[in-house]
Parts: sequence; C-alpha cells; structure tokens
Amino acid sequence: MAEDQTTAQRPDNAGGGKAIRPALALLGALAAGEKPSAALPGAVAVELVHDFSLLHDDVIDDDRMRRHRPTAWTVFGVPSALLAGDALVALATAVITEVPGEPGRRAGVLLSDALQRLMSGQTDDLAFETRMDVTFADYLDMAGGKTAALLSCSCSIGATLAGGSEWLVLGLAEVGERLGLAFQLVDDLLAMWGEPATTGKPVLSDLRARKKSAPIACTLEARGPAVDRLREYLASTGPVDDETLRDLAPVVEAAGRRRVEDEAARQLAAAEQTLTDLSLPPAADAQLRTMARYITRRDR
Amino acid sequence: MAEDQTTAQRPDNAGGGKAIRPALALLGALAAGEKPSAALPGAVAVELVHDFSLLHDDVIDDDRMRRHRPTAWTVFGVPSALLAGDALVALATAVITEVPGEPGRRAGVLLSDALQRLMSGQTDDLAFETRMDVTFADYLDMAGGKTAALLSCSCSIGATLAGGSEWLVLGLAEVGERLGLAFQLVDDLLAMWGEPATTGKPVLSDLRARKKSAPIACTLEARGPAVDRLREYLASTGPVDDETLRDLAPVVEAAGRRRVEDEAARQLAAAEQTLTDLSLPPAADAQLRTMARYITRRDR
Repeated sequence: MAEDQTTAQRPDNAGGGKAIRPALALLGALAAGEKPSAALPGAVAVELVHDFSLLHDDVIDDDRMRRHRPTAWTVFGVPSALLAGDALVALATAVITEVPGEPGRRAGVLLSDALQRLMSGQTDDLAFETRMDVTFADYLDMAGGKTAALLSCSCSIGATLAGGSEWLVLGLAEVGERLGLAFQLVDDLLAMWGEPATTGKPVLSDLRARKKSAPIACTLEARGPAVDRLREYLASTGPVDDETLRDLAPVVEAAGRRRVEDEAARQLAAAEQTLTDLSLPPAADAQLRTMARYITRRDR
Repeated sequence: MAEDQTTAQRPDNAGGGKAIRPALALLGALAAGEKPSAALPGAVAVELVHDFSLLHDDVIDDDRMRRHRPTAWTVFGVPSALLAGDALVALATAVITEVPGEPGRRAGVLLSDALQRLMSGQTDDLAFETRMDVTFADYLDMAGGKTAALLSCSCSIGATLAGGSEWLVLGLAEVGERLGLAFQLVDDLLAMWGEPATTGKPVLSDLRARKKSAPIACTLEARGPAVDRLREYLASTGPVDDETLRDLAPVVEAAGRRRVEDEAARQLAAAEQTLTDLSLPPAADAQLRTMARYITRRDR
C-alpha cells in the first residue's frame, strides 16, 4: 500500500542500511570459537537476501522512499527493480553453494528455509491488506516469516559455516528468531510514534498507510464504537484527513502501544535468556547482547 | 512490452507447459547410467526456476496471456505474482540444498550459476527495448542467458545428482547450451511465422510487439531505406497499423528468416555432435536426440 513519505534527506546516513544481519552472521562464527571471517559468505548472503526483499517489497507496497532516498523502482522502473532483486537472490545462493563441504550445504539449507519463510510472511502481510480481522497472534505469525526468519538465519548461519555444533546452531537460531520479532515490533512502534526527522517516516505512518501493524492488530482485537470506526477507516481508500487521525491515533495508542512494547521486551528477554543458556565465549556473548539491545532500543 | 494477444482457448492443452527442462534433467541421470529418479530433485528445481521466470517475465513484459490462459498478474495482481515467483525460487533452492553430500552441493552450484545467467540475460533483453543497434551476436549473448543457461543446467544437473563424471556433466551442459539457443531461435521463428491457432500468438507477434527477436536483430544489421523504416517503427510507440506490418514483414523475412533457421540448425547439429562424442548409453542417447529434434521442430 502507498505511504505518505517524508522527503527529508539525511546526508550523514548516506543511504546505507544498518547492516544488522551481516553483523549477526559474523558474531555467529565468533560464538563457535572461530574468526568472524569464517562466516563471511553467510554475512554476504543474508545481506543480499535482505536487499532483495527490500527491492521487491517497495514494488509490492508501492513505496517511494527508502533510507531517505527514492526507491529503486521509482528511479529505474519496476522491471529493473524486479530483476535486480532476482539477481541478488541468485547471487546469495551462489555465494553459499560455493562454500565446499557439509558446512556449506547446511548453510544453504538454512538460507533456503529462511527464504521460504520470508516469502510466506510477505504473502501473509499482503493478505492482511484486505483482512479486517487480523489478531496480534496472526501478526506475530506473519512477522515470524517476514522478519524473524532471516534474522534467525543471520544468527545461525555464521556458526554453521564455522562448524559449530547442532546445539549452538539451534540456540543461535532461537536467539535470532526472538530478536527478529522484537526488531519488527520496535519497527512498528517507530512507524507510529518515532521521531519523523530520525525515522524518515511521517508520524503515525502505518495508521496513515492503513497497515495492519502490531499496535493496529492489537486494537482490532478490542471492541466498541472507536474500534468500529478504526475498522471502517482501514477498509476505506483515498486520502486521510487529519481529523480521522486525531480521532483514531489515541485509540490505537491505548489498545496497542503498551502491549507491543511489553511483547518486544518479552522477546528480548527470551533472547537474552537463550544467550545465557548457551554460555558463549565472552566476546561473542557481550557483542550479541549489545546487538540485541541496539535492535530493541534504536530510534530509526 | 505489451503484446497483442489471441484469446483462443485450447482446452486440449489444459494450460500445461511442455516440461522440456525436467525431461532433460531425468535423461541426465540415465546418461550417467543411473535411474531417472536419481535426478528428481534437479528436475523439480529446473521446472520451478522456469515457472518463476515466467511469472516475473509476464509482469516485466506486461504480457496478458500465457499458454492460452490469462497470466498470473492479470488474475491475482502484480504483488502476488511477484511473491509467487520469489517463493518458487526459494523452493527450487531448498529442493537442491536438501540433497546430501557433494552431488547436492555441485547441483546447487549449477542451479545458482544458471539463475545468475538467467537474470543477466533477462536484463539484456530488457535493455534491448530501448536499443536500436542490437546485432545478431548481441541477441545470441542475451539468449544464452535468458534461455540456454537453464536448458544447460537442466541437461547437466541430472548427471551431477547421479554422480556422473566431470566430463559427462560438462558435455551435457554443452548439449543443453546448444539446444537452448536452438530452442529460443525456433521460438522466435514461431512468434513471427508460426500458426496462430497452434502457437497461441498472433502472426508477426514479435514485430507487432517491437521486440528485438532473432530475425529482427538480423535485419537491424542490414542497411537501406527499408531497414531505416524498421528502425523508426521499432522506436515508435502506440498501436501498429496493418500497412506498416505489410511493409516491414517482408523486410524482416528476407534479412532474418533463413539466417535464423540456419543458426538453429547449426546449434542442433553441434548438440548432436557433442552427444556423439559423449558415447552415452543407447537409451539415453536416443531419448536425448528425440528431445533435441522435438525442441527444434516443434510448432508451438
């Protein structure tokens, strides 16, 4: 769905992403007691898959701005953006399949599992557009595929390539799954109540875009005339007037904000508990915890 | 680019494809002295990649009919067609990476190489739309990626999965490459001079669609006022009038038809010579030759 977009430029950002996924992949090798470089093909592959998903997502959602810059399809056209995304998947797959031996093959299985869950989550997300009965549980299922699957793969693929044990790989996959859900929940909070100059999105962005984000899914579970008005608005099309936003924003805030914040905190705590259970080498443990806190306390 | 489309239905076709790629994959295992079933994951993967490319291609080319039926994006929308294509690639990769051991890994390399060449060929094809200087050599490069790469993979992936020698795998890849070029050349001939009721395309389809197909690329290498008129027409937009088609069709036929037919025959002969050099088991040899002739002598 189309979003109103800010045109604010942030030259200091230089249009780059946060590179969370490759960072997690490199830390996975460290967790397995190897140099981060052992995870390099995995780090490259997860970032390429992430970039592929952004290229196609922007076409699907008709989004015109990304990372404070015009999206690829608006500059190069839909066909080129589509082919560029396809080419990145092909390259990601190539980078992994070229790793010799069993670690390479296992990394390939992790990557293709993540790709499949990603597509499933994006398909659910698309179906949400015409559904007015999305629950928070539905949302968490969708976000598991759309966001957590690749974060989970990012955490586990490095350990796999470094020859880590099945126990370690599964544990890191669990850490990534929890962080992925926390990440998406924080993303949804920022898209509603973040600082527009920092996030690059207008305030109440997901409400404007009629998106079934986490706080809105929480609200749809409630009852009463205000929720009926929200449902009616979400099913409508055309421009959004300020009066409607002023009416509905407090409803979503009351029903959804605290619950989503609590769920994000719960997922972060679960990730941290799994890290404790894994008893990783101190450097890997400390850096993964820093990443975990960054993901859940970021402002953009 | 948009094509005029016939709406003729062929209930006897039931909308199915020709399944050439999985058939070649199964024959690859037979060529390696194993049962065709040894190539099953490869057969599945190449057909999924083919279907992925069709789903995205129809979006890119704005095509509304495929195999005598409306294309996916016209029925389900661009976002769903795009995600469905992405999901098929994910599944193709999964099917191959789940094959244990070195044959699985090598098959993964073949598949991801083919995917990369496919995307490169489709990108060239897209660039041809705005180029008026496409030569037959440019065309053959593009078709190598767009069509021959996956046919080459189809022929070689079965032998790889069946544990065939490097010599056999490379030989079959060469056979598939040649057959792929012949296949695309025949496709282009059918799109100009095939029987509309059989091909499901209007007569002179690629000329109507201003597509830099093989016969048209040949014609663009020639000089003179008729070729100038062709170039002018290809650079124009809007509906095509019958007078223009009556003027230009004989020019393309004179400059391109025989040359493309000869090149298709040359590629077929090269594929057959490589089959001879490989000295395959008789059943595999006979069936691959049957496939080769089917590909180059089909009418749809």
